[in-house]
Amino acid sequence: MPEPTTRERMISTAVTLFRREGYTATSWRHLVEQAGTPWGSAYHHFPGGKEQLAVAAIELATVTTSATITRAFERNDTIAEAVRWWFTKAAQALADGDYRAGCPLATIALETVNDSEVLTQACKTAFTTWQNELENHLREHGHPAPEGLAAAIMHNMEGALLMARVHNSPEPLTRAAGHIAILAAHTMMRRLP
Amino acid sequence: MPEPTTRERMISTAVTLFRREGYTATSWRHLVEQAGTPWGSAYHHFPGGKEQLAVAAIELATVTTSATITRAFERNDTIAEAVRWWFTKAAQALADGDYRAGCPLATIALETVNDSEVLTQACKTAFTTWQNELENHLREHGHPAPEGLAAAIMHNMEGALLMARVHNSPEPLTRAAGHIAILAAHTMMRRLP
Repeated sequence: MPEPTTRERMISTAVTLFRREGYTATSWRHLVEQAGTPWGSAYHHFPGGKEQLAVAAIELATVTTSATITRAFERNDTIAEAVRWWFTKAAQALADGDYRAGCPLATIALETVNDSEVLTQACKTAFTTWQNELENHLREHGHPAPEGLAAAIMHNMEGALLMARVHNSPEPLTRAAGHIAILAAHTMMRRLP
Repeated sequence: MPEPTTRERMISTAVTLFRREGYTATSWRHLVEQAGTPWGSAYHHFPGGKEQLAVAAIELATVTTSATITRAFERNDTIAEAVRWWFTKAAQALADGDYRAGCPLATIALETVNDSEVLTQACKTAFTTWQNELENHLREHGHPAPEGLAAAIMHNMEGALLMARVHNSPEPLTRAAGHIAILAAHTMMRRLP
């Protein structure tokens, strides 16, 4: 694998710091230092500073999570198994990071919604991308209510990630995956709101 | 109603600002000014500064939301109706605040988990109080899996509140209430994880 470029290193550092510390608490100076970027070239790569770097971080997180969703459905035969795989993976990542790094978007979204148009739009695009990705896979599985079930998966992932962080426990995610399995099976025959 | 005391005004201002702007972005100075507290008496009421005020804000939010949950179950005959009432109320509050003020705890929790032991503990207590409150009502309704269903309600409330904020729409909360209704009915006969 080639060495990451300065730009790539800045973006991956931003994803890590924003999800651990939040957007406001992470200063541009800290970002630049942690990424090991020569001070002079930080603004060269991101003339818009922290906000522009955050958009790039959100875009990277969007791609990474989309890929995880795709892998979940490639490696598992049923919707319930795919969701359980994804939620288990999220629980493991959370535990590996000592319950500090949850959803790469949730904290930025909650901190900046309606304050920064640029970041709100980037978060909206990210969540919509994941929702659409889920919908497509559910449709391929012949689920009759892909939109509603995809929304349920998103709500449960985000809500359970918050609870798992607060309680330092994988249990909320394990539970939530079980709830989705019930919803998915139940609604296989019916409409879901 | 009696005039709120200086202390009460500081706490309610803190709830409003933390849920709108987040914990880190809200400075102690801004809190004191917005609450109209004489500068000299701010530290008299909260010697521990912003962190101590945040604990009081979390405690107030805990009580307020617990009361809302109780009212939901008092005013409605079924679990599904009570949940729909609560989620609809949350959607209205969100819309009334121009989609800026979501869960009074989620932003603080995500920003401070594992950084501030005091705030993490306060958030943990708050979420556990709501979960227990829900469990008690579900048990009174004779639901066979009150713990699992209460967890599902919490996950869906938190996840849908985040999505509703990001998308400036009540739809995620309406949808999530529908999903809980399905889960509640389905699991009335069985165990829920």
